[in-house]
Amino acid sequence: MKTVPCKVFAPATVANVAVGYDILGFAINGIGDEVLIRKGSKPGLVISNIRGNKTLSKDPQKNTAGYCALKVMEHLGLENEPIEIELLKKMPIGTGLGSSAASSVAGAYAVNAYLDYPLKDRELLRFATMGEQLADGSFHADNVAPSLLGGFILIRDNTTLDHVRLPSIPGLKAVVIYPHITVLTRDSRAILKDHVALETHVAQSGNLAAFVSALFRSDIELLRRSLTDNLIEPQRASLIPGFYKMKEAALDLGALGFSISGAGPSMFALCMNTFDAENIIEKAKTIYRDQQIDITCYLSDINLEGAKKY
Amino acid sequence: MKTVPCKVFAPATVANVAVGYDILGFAINGIGDEVLIRKGSKPGLVISNIRGNKTLSKDPQKNTAGYCALKVMEHLGLENEPIEIELLKKMPIGTGLGSSAASSVAGAYAVNAYLDYPLKDRELLRFATMGEQLADGSFHADNVAPSLLGGFILIRDNTTLDHVRLPSIPGLKAVVIYPHITVLTRDSRAILKDHVALETHVAQSGNLAAFVSALFRSDIELLRRSLTDNLIEPQRASLIPGFYKMKEAALDLGALGFSISGAGPSMFALCMNTFDAENIIEKAKTIYRDQQIDITCYLSDINLEGAKKY
Repeated sequence: MKTVPCKVFAPATVANVAVGYDILGFAINGIGDEVLIRKGSKPGLVISNIRGNKTLSKDPQKNTAGYCALKVMEHLGLENEPIEIELLKKMPIGTGLGSSAASSVAGAYAVNAYLDYPLKDRELLRFATMGEQLADGSFHADNVAPSLLGGFILIRDNTTLDHVRLPSIPGLKAVVIYPHITVLTRDSRAILKDHVALETHVAQSGNLAAFVSALFRSDIELLRRSLTDNLIEPQRASLIPGFYKMKEAALDLGALGFSISGAGPSMFALCMNTFDAENIIEKAKTIYRDQQIDITCYLSDINLEGAKKY
Repeated sequence: MKTVPCKVFAPATVANVAVGYDILGFAINGIGDEVLIRKGSKPGLVISNIRGNKTLSKDPQKNTAGYCALKVMEHLGLENEPIEIELLKKMPIGTGLGSSAASSVAGAYAVNAYLDYPLKDRELLRFATMGEQLADGSFHADNVAPSLLGGFILIRDNTTLDHVRLPSIPGLKAVVIYPHITVLTRDSRAILKDHVALETHVAQSGNLAAFVSALFRSDIELLRRSLTDNLIEPQRASLIPGFYKMKEAALDLGALGFSISGAGPSMFALCMNTFDAENIIEKAKTIYRDQQIDITCYLSDINLEGAKKY
């Protein structure tokens, strides 16, 4: 069996994207997790090292990267193959940027790359989603799928993981603002009502369908009109200090839309050019300096590659 | 001012389309309403005749075709122009096939055609939607917009009437089965719960977004997987005798999807060929003969023209 020691990268992701709670996400550049993979010294998977985070377990059953790697090995009947991985957490956890998803994808992708690609990328999705489930208890692929596959991914059905690659619009930029506060995904889910008013469902559906249409048509103005969250954002905004102030500023500065990334506390804007994006980041620095909250900002193209070996 | 006596046709429509309650509809061929329009003998709008229905009022304030015609005339400052219309109801009312919408569109379109098109088709949408509001009390354009514009139309927002033309898939066929029973739109709306479970919202959203994607990609199998109503159909199916028996039969016979048309009692299937469509119609005749309910069936391409003069 040919094996290929290598390093893989899986990008951070913005899920929900205002209109697609639990079913929509896109990948960004410049932030994500890495896994180094090589031949181990004894049968089975060993996590030899974790850099960038001191709290994560090295037990493959408790670490999303290790867990997903192991699930791929088991699926292939190679759970006794001597494999050693190192996890390089290059993003903080609890950001709303798909940290557990990036680790999950990196783990699953690394094993598959090491074994010279016995599985197709999209076949890895189920194993990567198992890592997400390990992390927050819910089987949903709206972070995992774009981290793995790149671009905008729609999850038609989180049970079967039936998914659709949506086109991006050339030139589209994402601004991500990560305020250094703690919002746990569990808490962010718990705050949501378990019911939606029918009229809110109708409004949210209209915007979702129009947003998807805007991507297929490369219709920027339709995207601008449709990128509005009537459902989740009003319930979660209170968890993020200064959210509405930041949103208003971003829209004033030309953002096509602005909302919460995943379960928060990160926020994202989509923009049509770097100029608007940079202005929004400058404004964010001012707003959160006043709030006495540290932030990290990212300006990214839509990452169309997803996970990759390098 | 140039005036053009003419006859216009506005087609029947299938609204909701399983995945897009209140925001999605498409137009069909072979059924709809007509309006004849000519110079009148006194100032203002007169409905001189209604054929095909004995219950409708000839008062333009109470008749959807007349009301919409009048609204267009008022908008143009031509409410005193002597205009006479005849309404040819070529479809029954209370079918779930957009009967009031077809009359509304025919009325608005006829005045605009008679006056040599001072307004663009899409500018007529607001006036036609006013007719819909007159008929059932709710301002929604999911029947009116496809009847006016043809094809699949998404209404992003029923307040602003911001809408999007979705592509159809070449060769797509619609089967419509109208059982001769009475289901009032008001009753069909009243039966709906005013809240949606969050998980149902997520499932329905996934299918809606995938359905829109399927149209843009001409992806028949994705359309088949996504054309499922988790929300409205389970609440309304009890209003239509034999609904689930008919649905199961249609899917067994190759329908891409089967659900309720608008507020019912009509049902629709989408099919990829005439062969499947005809088999479904034959089966419907058997099923409803056993139920002792008369039915009328239609086999149609997606009507891409919408309202037209001829």
